[in-house]
Amino acid sequence: MAYEIERRFKVNGERWRGLAPGIWYRQGYVSVEPQRTVRVRVVGELAWLTLKGQISSMRRHEFEYPVPLADAEAMLTHLCAMQVEKKRYRIELDGFIWEVDEFFGDNAGLILAEIELPDEHTPFTRPDWLGEEVTEDGRYTNAWLSQHPYTQWADPAQGSPVPPAP
Amino acid sequence: MAYEIERRFKVNGERWRGLAPGIWYRQGYVSVEPQRTVRVRVVGELAWLTLKGQISSMRRHEFEYPVPLADAEAMLTHLCAMQVEKKRYRIELDGFIWEVDEFFGDNAGLILAEIELPDEHTPFTRPDWLGEEVTEDGRYTNAWLSQHPYTQWADPAQGSPVPPAP
Repeated sequence: MAYEIERRFKVNGERWRGLAPGIWYRQGYVSVEPQRTVRVRVVGELAWLTLKGQISSMRRHEFEYPVPLADAEAMLTHLCAMQVEKKRYRIELDGFIWEVDEFFGDNAGLILAEIELPDEHTPFTRPDWLGEEVTEDGRYTNAWLSQHPYTQWADPAQGSPVPPAP
Repeated sequence: MAYEIERRFKVNGERWRGLAPGIWYRQGYVSVEPQRTVRVRVVGELAWLTLKGQISSMRRHEFEYPVPLADAEAMLTHLCAMQVEKKRYRIELDGFIWEVDEFFGDNAGLILAEIELPDEHTPFTRPDWLGEEVTEDGRYTNAWLSQHPYTQWADPAQGSPVPPAP
């Protein structure tokens, strides 16, 4: 068990590109309840099952276990609704790692940056490509995006511009 | 990954007692959706995380992983709502194992027997203490009981004798 403290931001422009290689992530959710999310994640030939309980918008309990790839593929197919596909770029800056997620598929067009911190109030350097903070906006969680994909947020045909924050 | 085919029955009388020792089980649910339940189970010093996807009332995908006891205790506390406590008696009969579950705590008074079968149509011997089959009645799943405990099913003060089958 561990606590996870994360802050999440939009990304401005393209100046983050080229700072780190991108790695493909594919993940789905067995439970998307904010109080208890259950995630299946595949990265290359490796796979994990991760349970998170929300304590506050920044602070969460996290339990993570490696699982066989075949299990993860079967869980993605049989237990998860939609999948989230993204390329993750791990960019180091002043001793912290920024994880920049470039989404594809139904979430194409969205790029987010996350930083994991030891404490809610830890100061950190903001790179010049960092945009608006969305830590408090539940629509930008991967669990929410797996059910309400970004490409449908502003679909005028559906008459619903942007979903309300959960 | 495995399929699990189970049939579930009520238990009549006390003639099953003494046929096997009882072992304490404590479990909670991170997700109780029938299509994707996520269970945390503690038996003595051992603990497991189990995900199940429902294919039919009898047939389910099952994924099970051992987890550290401390993780399981923390998940029961922080990620699960109520817990189910029971003693399980594994009774062998003609090559099959009957798991008789005697519930305690909020589910005291309920005793169920389950048999795991290789196929939905496999014949098996019915012991004389076996009661009505409740495989199709979702109220007798541990996930449902964790949210709607048996002792509250017939509480006249609440005015709701028995909850409708989900």
